[in-house]
Amino acid sequence: MIKSDISNYVVSSRIRLARNLVKYPFPNKLGFEGGMRIIKEISTPLTKYLDSNLLLLKNMKPLEIEALKEKHLISNALSENVNTGGVVLNKDSTLSVMINEEDHARIQVIKKALDLESAYEFADKVDDLISENSEVAFDVHLGYLSSCPTNLGTAMRASVMMFLPALAINRTINNVIFSISKDAIALRGVYGEGTQAEGYMYQLSNQYSLGLSEKEIINTVNNQIYKVAEAEEIARATLLSKNRVELTDMVMRAWGILTNAYKIDSAEFMQNISLIKLGAALNILNIKNTALDEIIVACRPANLTLRYGKDLNAQERDICRAEFLRDVLIKLM
Amino acid sequence: MIKSDISNYVVSSRIRLARNLVKYPFPNKLGFEGGMRIIKEISTPLTKYLDSNLLLLKNMKPLEIEALKEKHLISNALSENVNTGGVVLNKDSTLSVMINEEDHARIQVIKKALDLESAYEFADKVDDLISENSEVAFDVHLGYLSSCPTNLGTAMRASVMMFLPALAINRTINNVIFSISKDAIALRGVYGEGTQAEGYMYQLSNQYSLGLSEKEIINTVNNQIYKVAEAEEIARATLLSKNRVELTDMVMRAWGILTNAYKIDSAEFMQNISLIKLGAALNILNIKNTALDEIIVACRPANLTLRYGKDLNAQERDICRAEFLRDVLIKLM
Repeated sequence: MIKSDISNYVVSSRIRLARNLVKYPFPNKLGFEGGMRIIKEISTPLTKYLDSNLLLLKNMKPLEIEALKEKHLISNALSENVNTGGVVLNKDSTLSVMINEEDHARIQVIKKALDLESAYEFADKVDDLISENSEVAFDVHLGYLSSCPTNLGTAMRASVMMFLPALAINRTINNVIFSISKDAIALRGVYGEGTQAEGYMYQLSNQYSLGLSEKEIINTVNNQIYKVAEAEEIARATLLSKNRVELTDMVMRAWGILTNAYKIDSAEFMQNISLIKLGAALNILNIKNTALDEIIVACRPANLTLRYGKDLNAQERDICRAEFLRDVLIKLM
Repeated sequence: MIKSDISNYVVSSRIRLARNLVKYPFPNKLGFEGGMRIIKEISTPLTKYLDSNLLLLKNMKPLEIEALKEKHLISNALSENVNTGGVVLNKDSTLSVMINEEDHARIQVIKKALDLESAYEFADKVDDLISENSEVAFDVHLGYLSSCPTNLGTAMRASVMMFLPALAINRTINNVIFSISKDAIALRGVYGEGTQAEGYMYQLSNQYSLGLSEKEIINTVNNQIYKVAEAEEIARATLLSKNRVELTDMVMRAWGILTNAYKIDSAEFMQNISLIKLGAALNILNIKNTALDEIIVACRPANLTLRYGKDLNAQERDICRAEFLRDVLIKLM
């Protein structure tokens, strides 16, 4: 059992449901007309009954598409489908329904901290709105039909973003990943399989969705989350007791750089903000750390450029990033 | 002609007079008894007529001797004469009379910014107090007799500490040193001949004291100071116009490090405080920079240890230095 709140380890929870409509082929076989009809059929009940908007990629600037990707509201795959890709977003961006990605509809609900249950509840409601309006492909034996076989069954992926700095620093994260993977649960760096975890962020999710109910999947994932959180809690305590002076120095210098630099690039920013998140988690820095993940997204190139409202070259972007950070970080104190 | 105030280039002015008493051999030939008699003879009129105190090295802790050396109030040579070395210091440490260094008496007066004239005036008054009490070795042809022949004549060295970051950074300082040295004036890094200038600080002084009056020496040194200052002024303007973004970033990061680090060693401290001095000189940082040189002295190992009042190991000293800096720098804003 962990002693501190689970929100010290779990940043956000996400439920994703894949759905396909019976009367259309999978998106990779669809033409423009078919793609548009699917967008209309799926988005109509959503924008009618939920406080949400439909965005068509063909009407968006590349920078705006990139900004949605940086916010994890759309996937790489969707961003590449600039002809027939679409997304329905609600006002607070907790809901994103990607249309004509790998499947006709990918319902994604994101909640802060650990809350897969309520994320599922909302996703299920969105699923109902779609099913009431269209016939969704479903097989009694295989469950929901999807373009990728790993998504058969519930076609649900339950995932959480975990902040695991101590396990990353003491290099035991790979042992944890190995022990978790035996349970049909995957733990990986945030930017997908094989990539290095950026900012000590890891995604834990179910590997398969066939043969288990939604509730069972969520329970299995939750159990693993607590195991990983416990390992991280122990690792943090050890790290702090063995390296308090060095850690304090590193964290405080990172704060000094981010609140003073005149220009800073993405890589150095991520390195330092990760140390600040670590410092906040270890109570070395007494700041409100809930905003740090939003600051990370705001500092990504496309979001930063949109914020400053004009084209920026690399050096201008680094200067704007530093200016934004000096302004926003000081308010966390 | 320079456009800005000379105090942007000259940190302090120093006059040093070497004096020896007729009836004693030079210090290297003196025993303990002779050394003590000289201390008494030289210090008595000084402590009587000036608001000053005599310190005997044999009664001091090594740390206290080291702290005086760090403040440039005593020389390396004096600090090594722990048997018969002594120093008379006035209250504000503008006067330091070293006794039994290379000569029987070395009168040293330090003034802020460029003010060799008033430094000489004070040193001359101290010289009078010594001469009225003892017979000082003087030859009509050779002037004041001293243990080193380069000090014959007036036995005076007029020197100033110059802050020359732009000439150091654009690597033209060596050209300036070369052109100056032809005029019997030396320009060198602060910690003596051949050593690298620490913190962009250079000492400009006359090379010889024979054949010129005190006033002539001071005039010659003053003329050279203005030439060097002009070269530095031009170099600063060029540096700023060509590298404003990089310089601003370097200076602001240095400020971030020094006002946030949890521990910092001497070398990294000097590197960063030098950048801050540069930033203040170039108006990148809007701080009162007059205190920076005092902060540099306060951060040297012995002075820092004395301030904290207990023995410190290297790591503790680095932590105390950082704590002191966080406290003192913020007050300059």
